[in-house]
Amino acid sequence: MRIGILGGTGPAGSALAARLGSIGHCVVIGSRSLPRALETRASLVGSYAQLEDYLEAGDNPTAAACDVVVIATPWDSASTTAREHADLLEGKVVVSMANALVRVGGEFQPLVPPRGSVAGHVQAAVPGCRVVAAFHHVPAKELGHIGAPIETDVLICGDDDGAIEVVSDIVRQIPGCRPLHAGSLSNATAIEAFTAVLLQLNVRYKTRAALKLTGIRDAPAAAPVAQAARA
Amino acid sequence: MRIGILGGTGPAGSALAARLGSIGHCVVIGSRSLPRALETRASLVGSYAQLEDYLEAGDNPTAAACDVVVIATPWDSASTTAREHADLLEGKVVVSMANALVRVGGEFQPLVPPRGSVAGHVQAAVPGCRVVAAFHHVPAKELGHIGAPIETDVLICGDDDGAIEVVSDIVRQIPGCRPLHAGSLSNATAIEAFTAVLLQLNVRYKTRAALKLTGIRDAPAAAPVAQAARA
Repeated sequence: MRIGILGGTGPAGSALAARLGSIGHCVVIGSRSLPRALETRASLVGSYAQLEDYLEAGDNPTAAACDVVVIATPWDSASTTAREHADLLEGKVVVSMANALVRVGGEFQPLVPPRGSVAGHVQAAVPGCRVVAAFHHVPAKELGHIGAPIETDVLICGDDDGAIEVVSDIVRQIPGCRPLHAGSLSNATAIEAFTAVLLQLNVRYKTRAALKLTGIRDAPAAAPVAQAARA
Repeated sequence: MRIGILGGTGPAGSALAARLGSIGHCVVIGSRSLPRALETRASLVGSYAQLEDYLEAGDNPTAAACDVVVIATPWDSASTTAREHADLLEGKVVVSMANALVRVGGEFQPLVPPRGSVAGHVQAAVPGCRVVAAFHHVPAKELGHIGAPIETDVLICGDDDGAIEVVSDIVRQIPGCRPLHAGSLSNATAIEAFTAVLLQLNVRYKTRAALKLTGIRDAPAAAPVAQAARA
């Protein structure tokens, strides 16, 4: 599958590019600046020669033309970047991974963007695309360290079950990762905000925490929502 | 330690009462209705005879007079219940465990109470108490099933590190539980909201999910906040 990453030169985007390349996808590292995309690609291939055939550098429109598109820009550019490439994104699975956070004093604090979440804002900017929120809690450094698995659950939410399934299949290919269907795009609000708590834990415990949920034995990504359970 | 639970007759409160009794604390199950408190106590002791000497039934003022007080009422009564017993709560460690959630269609959705969280609202109602938000993500049924450990991390946040340490010590005594210092009371907003996501997962995967964080090896509950880490 050909996956494009808008804003693929930042820490999260380039880490995801490396990881997706390592599991055999052809990844276009997109950027507003082609030279920066070329530089990021060169740096990744310099670290991991095996990525040579899997990573391309491109401008954002080239990335937006791929089968699946990830928006990995800073959170405050996500929806405008999506809107700029709306024609190319129409009907496609678009992955939103940014978190709207600010640092206030020593703490990360979540902001609530228009539409309740970055992902919701992207969906509103391009109503015809199929937004899926994912990868928010995966530490970028571990994501980019392609030699090692990442033991984490990846919460995936969105309004289009087929799109969630596409992203779940990709996540399932990453060693150690388990995709979990976390409901509709409404849940992106709490998922994005919770990243601030994980960052806070990272600061305090000098680590990079990742999420695992106990009690979920199998992971039927498209299981029916049938009955309520209470925590 | 003598621990009082305001609203101790509900699912979360009674489960916590049983668990805290099982690790040797003297727990007052508080209620607006003493007969209901007596009934809850009788039911718990009926299930677990070993709790006989550890559980008391009382009215809410009796519970509020304890060393540490837990507010386990429904979320929309938490701050008013706290305010009603403000004199008794003054200076004390007060644990807020409620989540402001509504069910809309098939999904749980978090509400944002005044002051950003249930815990923040309780703190505002009784400024002189030391509010700690904790236990939000622990499934009530597993909490009350005192024969088995609960493999979960318990996120604990608040503005008073001493109060967090008191609650961390209690959590540490529960088999399988690891307390994690999750920063200031500001973080209660995201922690409470994230409960909606866990409930959503419970519905979909027909389970009761609990939280574990990978990457945190030891748990220095009062470690200094020194440097930033990025996810």
